[in-house]
Amino acid sequence: MSRKVDVESTVRAAREGSVRAVARLLTSVENHSEQLPDIMAAVAAAHQAAGGRAAEVVGITGSPGVGKSTTTNALVQAWRKEGKRVAVLAVDPSSPFSGGAILGDRVRMQDHALDEGVYIRSMSSRGHLGGLTATTPQAVRLLEGMDFDVIVVETVGVGQAEVEIADLADTTLVLLAPGMGDGIQAVKAGILEIADLFVVNKSDRDGAAATVRDLRAMMALVRREPGQWRQPIVQTVAHEGTGIDEVIAEAAKHHQWLAQEDKLRVRRRERARSEITALVGAQLRRRYTVDDATAEAVAQGELDPYAAAEAILGRQY
Amino acid sequence: MSRKVDVESTVRAAREGSVRAVARLLTSVENHSEQLPDIMAAVAAAHQAAGGRAAEVVGITGSPGVGKSTTTNALVQAWRKEGKRVAVLAVDPSSPFSGGAILGDRVRMQDHALDEGVYIRSMSSRGHLGGLTATTPQAVRLLEGMDFDVIVVETVGVGQAEVEIADLADTTLVLLAPGMGDGIQAVKAGILEIADLFVVNKSDRDGAAATVRDLRAMMALVRREPGQWRQPIVQTVAHEGTGIDEVIAEAAKHHQWLAQEDKLRVRRRERARSEITALVGAQLRRRYTVDDATAEAVAQGELDPYAAAEAILGRQY
Repeated sequence: MSRKVDVESTVRAAREGSVRAVARLLTSVENHSEQLPDIMAAVAAAHQAAGGRAAEVVGITGSPGVGKSTTTNALVQAWRKEGKRVAVLAVDPSSPFSGGAILGDRVRMQDHALDEGVYIRSMSSRGHLGGLTATTPQAVRLLEGMDFDVIVVETVGVGQAEVEIADLADTTLVLLAPGMGDGIQAVKAGILEIADLFVVNKSDRDGAAATVRDLRAMMALVRREPGQWRQPIVQTVAHEGTGIDEVIAEAAKHHQWLAQEDKLRVRRRERARSEITALVGAQLRRRYTVDDATAEAVAQGELDPYAAAEAILGRQY
Repeated sequence: MSRKVDVESTVRAAREGSVRAVARLLTSVENHSEQLPDIMAAVAAAHQAAGGRAAEVVGITGSPGVGKSTTTNALVQAWRKEGKRVAVLAVDPSSPFSGGAILGDRVRMQDHALDEGVYIRSMSSRGHLGGLTATTPQAVRLLEGMDFDVIVVETVGVGQAEVEIADLADTTLVLLAPGMGDGIQAVKAGILEIADLFVVNKSDRDGAAATVRDLRAMMALVRREPGQWRQPIVQTVAHEGTGIDEVIAEAAKHHQWLAQEDKLRVRRRERARSEITALVGAQLRRRYTVDDATAEAVAQGELDPYAAAEAILGRQY
C-alpha cells in the first residue's frame, strides 16, 4: 500500500506527462500518505517556478442515470479539440465491495486511452474521514500543479457531495434528464444554489421540454440581485454530441464572468481555506480521540455529550 | 432566533407531552443554542431518573421519488396501533431558498395532527458545519429523553447523508422503487452496506420483480460471515398499506438480533462516540480558524496547504 515514492523524480516525471507518475501521486493523496506534505510542497514549488498557471475547475453532478459519464466524455472530446489538456476526477461515494465505479470507468477510458492530453482517475470517497473534502481538493491541487488546463470533478448524487463539489469547482454543471423527478424534488436537492449551468441531457426524450419549463419556473421564484449570474439551461443529447459546444461556451462565459467580478480569486481563496481547514481538522481528530469509557458513559445516559466533550477538550496534549 | 428557554420547566413540559416544548428544545438543537449543554444535561438527568429507557431508532432512506414520506406515514400508523409513541425527524439537505421540505411535511402531518403519540419534525441539515452529524444525533438523544418508543430518522439521497443515517440508526431501511436505477447504480450508492432491510415500494408497478431480482443478485455477490444479518427484502405498496406490517415485523426481528448479538450496545457506544467527536470538532473549529492571508497564500501557490496547516496548528491558544 504505502510504497515510498521518490518525491522529486516522481513530481518531475508527472509534470513531464507520465501517466504512471501522476497516478502514483494521486494514490498518495488517496491513501493519505505520510509523504503527502513533501509531495505537495514539491508540486507547489515546481508549479510556481513554471509560472503557476491556474486550471479551470469544472464540477459535474447529477442523479444516477442522467448521463454524467457520457456527458463528461463528450465535453472532454470538445476541450481536446481546443487543444486543452484535461484531467477528470470521478469521485464516487462508492462501496468497498464494488471497489468504485471501475466498470463505468473502464468503458469510458477507452475513448481517450491513447490520448496523452487526457487523464482520467476514479477516486473513492468512502472510508476516509471527511469524504470528498479530505482528498479531492488535494487531488485537484496536484493536477493543477501538473499544468492541466481543465480539471473536471464528477460526482454522483444529492446532498453533501454535491455541495462540496460546488465549493471546489469554479463552474458547476448540474445535469438533469427528463422524467427523473419533479420540481419540488429538484428544489429539495438544493441544486438551484449550486448550479452555475443546467444541462438537460437526453433531450431527445419525451418530457425534456417539461424539465426545462420546471427549471425556468423554479428559477423565476428566486430573487436575484442585480449583476448576479443567471444560470443558463442547455439541452444536450450527449451520446451524439448535440449541445456539447454550447455547454463549453456557456461554461467559458461563466468563467469569464467570475474573473471579471473578482469572484474567481475569492472562490479560490475559500477553496484553499477549506482545504487547510480539512488538514487542520484531520490532525486535531488524531489528537483528540474519544475513549471507550467516555463513549459508553454517554451511551448509557450517565454522562451528557457536552460534559464528555468538555472533558476531552480539557485534557493536555 | 435565540430566545432564552427556561431549561428546567421546558424539559419537564416536554417530557409530559407538550408538543410546543419539544419543538422549542429541538429548535435549540437546530440553532446550536448556547443553552444546549444545559438542556442536554437536564434531559439526561430527567430521563435517567425515570429509568433511562432506550428508544428504537429507525433510519429510512432512498432516492427522491421512491415514496419515503408515504412509507414513513404508513409505518407510523402501524406503530401507533401497537401503542408505541413515535417521533419522526425528517432530515433534509434542503435549500435555504425553499426553507426545507415544508410542503411535503404539511401534507404529511395532517394524518397525525390530532394524535399525541406522534411527533413529526422537519430539520434542515444545510448551512451548519458537519451537516447531519452535528445536529441529528443530538435531536435523537433529546427525543429519546422524552421517552419516545420509536424514533424515525428519514433522509433523502445517496452518499454521505445515507451513511450518516446508518451510523445513527439501530435499523436502517433502504427504500427502492421499480425503474429508479439499475443494479450497478445501486451498488455505487453503497446501499448494500447500510441497509438492514430493503423495502421495494410501489410494488404494484411494472418492474418490481426485476428490482427484487437485481437486489438478490447483488446480495449473492457479497461474501457473508456465518451469523451475519441477512437483509430481508419486503415489497410494499405504501399508499394502500400493503406490506407495512411485514416491514414492522422484520425491523423488530433485526432489533432483536442486534440485542442478542450485543451489537446494539456497540452501535450505541459508537453513536455516542461520533456525537462527542462532532461536539469536540465544532469546538476545535472555532479555536483553529484559517485567516485570509494564509488562505490567500495557499490559493496563490506561495504556500503549500500542509505548511499552512502546520503553521495554524502551531499557534498558541
